[in-house]
Amino acid sequence: MWLLTIILLTNILMATSKIYDSPAYFRNILIEKELKMMVGHSIELYDNELEANEIIMDLKRKEIDYGFWNPKYYNLSKHFFEYKDLVKDTKLYKILKSMPKGAVLHGHDTAMLGPDYVLKLTYCNDLWICFKEDQSDVSFIFSKNHPTGRCETKWERTKDIRRTMNVTEFDAKLRQFFTLVIDNPEEVYTDVNTVWEYFSKYFARTEPLFTYKPVWEKYYYDTLLALREDNVMYFEIRSVLPPLYDLEGNIYDSVDTAKSYRRVTDKFKKDYPDFFGAKLIYAPVRSVTRETLKNYIKIAKEIHELMPDFLAGFDLVGQEDLGRPLKDFYPEIANIGLNLYFHAGETNWYGTSTDENLFDAVLLGTKRIGHAYALVKHPLLMEEVKQRKIALEVNVISNVVLKLVDDVRNHPLATYLSQDLPVVLSSDDPGAWEAEILTHDFYVAFVGVSSRHADLKMLKQLALNSLYYSSYSEKDKLVHEFQIRWMNFIDSIVKDQ
Amino acid sequence: MWLLTIILLTNILMATSKIYDSPAYFRNILIEKELKMMVGHSIELYDNELEANEIIMDLKRKEIDYGFWNPKYYNLSKHFFEYKDLVKDTKLYKILKSMPKGAVLHGHDTAMLGPDYVLKLTYCNDLWICFKEDQSDVSFIFSKNHPTGRCETKWERTKDIRRTMNVTEFDAKLRQFFTLVIDNPEEVYTDVNTVWEYFSKYFARTEPLFTYKPVWEKYYYDTLLALREDNVMYFEIRSVLPPLYDLEGNIYDSVDTAKSYRRVTDKFKKDYPDFFGAKLIYAPVRSVTRETLKNYIKIAKEIHELMPDFLAGFDLVGQEDLGRPLKDFYPEIANIGLNLYFHAGETNWYGTSTDENLFDAVLLGTKRIGHAYALVKHPLLMEEVKQRKIALEVNVISNVVLKLVDDVRNHPLATYLSQDLPVVLSSDDPGAWEAEILTHDFYVAFVGVSSRHADLKMLKQLALNSLYYSSYSEKDKLVHEFQIRWMNFIDSIVKDQ
Repeated sequence: MWLLTIILLTNILMATSKIYDSPAYFRNILIEKELKMMVGHSIELYDNELEANEIIMDLKRKEIDYGFWNPKYYNLSKHFFEYKDLVKDTKLYKILKSMPKGAVLHGHDTAMLGPDYVLKLTYCNDLWICFKEDQSDVSFIFSKNHPTGRCETKWERTKDIRRTMNVTEFDAKLRQFFTLVIDNPEEVYTDVNTVWEYFSKYFARTEPLFTYKPVWEKYYYDTLLALREDNVMYFEIRSVLPPLYDLEGNIYDSVDTAKSYRRVTDKFKKDYPDFFGAKLIYAPVRSVTRETLKNYIKIAKEIHELMPDFLAGFDLVGQEDLGRPLKDFYPEIANIGLNLYFHAGETNWYGTSTDENLFDAVLLGTKRIGHAYALVKHPLLMEEVKQRKIALEVNVISNVVLKLVDDVRNHPLATYLSQDLPVVLSSDDPGAWEAEILTHDFYVAFVGVSSRHADLKMLKQLALNSLYYSSYSEKDKLVHEFQIRWMNFIDSIVKDQ
Repeated sequence: MWLLTIILLTNILMATSKIYDSPAYFRNILIEKELKMMVGHSIELYDNELEANEIIMDLKRKEIDYGFWNPKYYNLSKHFFEYKDLVKDTKLYKILKSMPKGAVLHGHDTAMLGPDYVLKLTYCNDLWICFKEDQSDVSFIFSKNHPTGRCETKWERTKDIRRTMNVTEFDAKLRQFFTLVIDNPEEVYTDVNTVWEYFSKYFARTEPLFTYKPVWEKYYYDTLLALREDNVMYFEIRSVLPPLYDLEGNIYDSVDTAKSYRRVTDKFKKDYPDFFGAKLIYAPVRSVTRETLKNYIKIAKEIHELMPDFLAGFDLVGQEDLGRPLKDFYPEIANIGLNLYFHAGETNWYGTSTDENLFDAVLLGTKRIGHAYALVKHPLLMEEVKQRKIALEVNVISNVVLKLVDDVRNHPLATYLSQDLPVVLSSDDPGAWEAEILTHDFYVAFVGVSSRHADLKMLKQLALNSLYYSSYSEKDKLVHEFQIRWMNFIDSIVKDQ
C-alpha cells in the first residue's frame, strides 16, 4: 500500500506538464492520499456520523485557527497546568467527555485519582500523620494506637489536628502534598530528574495511606467508577502490588494484593454490569538487582497460576533513564512465559540505553510499548511495530508534565498518527497532575497534536485501537457494545446541536 | 533496501527461539542495522579518520553522558542564548570550528553578521541616527546633509552624538538594537508571532544602514570572509535585493543590487582564490499581492538573463504562518522557468496552509526545501524528498530562537538523520542571534540532536551533502578540494591529541 502510494506520487510528479495544468487538482490528490495513511483512514462515516463530524470539526478548527492567528493565547502549547481547568468549559471538551473512549491500557495504581480524592481519605478514622520538622513533607499510617514508626516531630491523629486548626488552611496545605500541580512548574520542575524526584515523593508519601487494605480497595473501586464516569469501558491497571496492611497487624503480600484487585473488580462488575472489567499488569520498579527481579518474576508467575484470566502480564516501572535498562535483565525475562507490556523509550536521550530499551522491548516480544516516545527516531522499529501490531501506549500529558516535551505540537504522536502506527491514548498517572481520567488526553491529542484535518474517524479509531490492543478475551463483545454506545453518542451530538 | 531490512528483521524476530539463545547478539545486529540507515552510513573511515573519530566520539559521549546523569546542567536543552558562549570553549566546538563544513546553502543577506559588526558600521562617516521619543527604537540614514526623513526626536550624526556622550554606554545601548539576544528570552519571546515581531524590526531598523551601497558591499564581503574563516567554501545567499542608495542621491534597483553581489563575489574570489564563491537566491518577501509577486518574478528573470551563472534561483521569505501560502501563487510560479528553493513547513501548526506549503513546494518542483520543520508529520512527502533528492535545509538554532521548539532533542532533524533524508545543515540568520556563521549549528546538531552513536561519518556526510545539493556547477572540483581539506583536518586532530 505504502509502496503503491509512493510510486503513484512519483508518477504524478514526473508528468510535470500535467501538474502545471491543474496544480490545485494534484495538490488535493496528494493531501487526500496522505490523509488516507493516517490513523482512522479505514473508517467510513455514515449519516449522523457525518453530521456529528461537522459539528466536532467546526469546534476543532475554530480552536486551532484562533491559535494560528493568536499563538500568544493558544493554550495547548503552554504547560498543562495553565489550561487544564479552562478547557473543561469548552463544548468540544464536553463532547469528548461524553464520547465512548474504549479502554485505558496504561494507568498506574495509586496515581489515577486526584488530590481532592486523596484529601478526603485523610478524613478516615485511625489515620495518623507526622509532619517533617520543616513542614516540607508528611508521613501517614493507619493505626489503632500511637504509631511506633519514626517521626521527626510527633504522630497525631488527623482527626485531632483538625479539631485544633483552621481546617480549610490545613486541608489546603495537605492537598498540596497529593499533586504535582503548582503555579510555576517551569521554575520548579527544571528538568526530567527534578520532576521525577517530586513525582517519586508523591508515591513514597502516599504509600502507607493507600496500602491500608480498606483504602486500597476503595481507591481501586473508585478508580473504576471514575473510568466508567469518563466513558471508559475496560481497564488494564499497572500495579507495583505493594504489601497491604490492616489495623489488626496483618500484612498481605503482593499475591494477596492481586487477589484484592480481582475481588474488587468482580464486585464492581456486579454493581455496574455495563462495565467490562479490568486486568492487572504486574509492574514492579525497574531500579533493582537481578536477584530482586527474579523474585518479582516468581510472584508474577504465582499470580498467573492463580488467576490466569486476570493477570494480563508483566512490566517494570520507574524513571527509565535512572532505572536499569532492559538489556540487563535479558536472561531473567527471555523465557518468562508471561505477556510483556514494557515501558520503553520514555526519553529524549537519543542513542542511550534508555532509548535502546525500545529494541529490547521488541526483541523480548512485548505486546505493547508504554510511551514509545523515542520511537520516532527509530525507522526500523517504527516499521516493525506496525507490521507486528505492537501497540504504542502514548501519554501526551504525562510527557509534558514529566518534562519530555514543552509544546505538544512537537510530540512524536503527530508522526505516529500520520503513519497509522498502532496507537492507543492513555493517561499514565492522571491523578498526580489533576487531569481527568482520560478525556484531557483525548482533548490534547485531538486539538493540540493531530492534524487540523484529523476528525471523528481518528477519534473512533483511537477508541477502537484501545479495545483491539487490549488483552480482553472476548473482543467481539467489547467492540459490539462499543458500537452501540458510539451510535448513541453520535445521536446525542446531533440532537444537542 | 528498506524493504529488505524489514523482512530480515521480521524473520529474525519470528525465529523467536533463536532470540532467547543469544539476545545480545541480535540486539547488536538490529542496532547496527538501524545505524546503517542513518545519514553517513555509506561513508567508510580509514586510518587517521578512525583515530580522529575516537577522539571526537570521546568528547561527544562525555558531553551527552554528563547530561544524561545531570540533566539540570545539560546546556543544549536550554535556550541557545544561555549556552552559545559557553560551548565555544569546549574542545569539541574547536574541532568543529576547524572542520571543513562544505557550503552554507541557507543564509539571509542582512542577518549573517552579529551586532558587534553592525555596531562598528555606525562609526562610518555621514551616518545619521534618530531615536524614538521613548528610546525604544532607532532609525538610520546615510546622508551628506541633515536628513529630511521623518524623525520623532531629531536626526543627529552618530559621530556628533558620540562626542557628547559616554561612548561605552551609548554603544552598548545601540548594540542591543542589532541582536535578538536578551537575558530573558522565555519571558519576552512568548510565542512565534512575538519573536517574529522583534525579528522583523531588526530587519526594518537596519535596512537603511545596510542599503547604503558602500556598506552593503562591505557587509557582503565581510560575510564571505566570516564564512571562509568558519571553514565554509561556498555560499548561496538569499536576498530580498533591496534598492541601494549613495550619498549622491542615486538609487540602485534590485537588479543593480544583484550586480553588486556579483561584483563583490568576483572580487572576493580574486582576493581569496581558495574560496569557491557564491550564488544568489532571489528571495523577496512572501506577504505580498499576486501583482507584486509578478513584478518580483520579472526582476528574477531579468537577473537570470543577465547572470544565469550567478542566480541560483527563486524563493520567498518572511514568517510563513503570516505570509501568503504558496498555493496562492500557483499560477505565477508554475511556469516560472527558474530553479526554486522554497521555504516550506517552518511551522508546528499541523494541517494548516503553512504546513501544507510542503506539498506545494514539492509539487512546484523545488530543488531544496528551506527548514522543512513540519516534514516529519508527512510520510508521503518524506519518502518523496528522499526519492527525488530534494534537500532539506535544516536550521536548528533558528528554530529554537524563532520558537518552534524549546529542547533541541525534540527537533525533527533527529528523525531526518535516522532515515538518511537529504539533509544539509545551515544557520539561517546567525548574526541576529549571535551564533557563529555555521559552527554553532553543527555543534548543536551533532551533540544535541543526533544519536549518541552518530559520528564522524555523519559529520562528513553532512558537509558533503551541502556540496552535492548546492547549485555549484563543477561539483567534482568542489568535492575534490573538500577531500583534501578534510584529510588535513583529520591529520590535525590526530596530531593535536
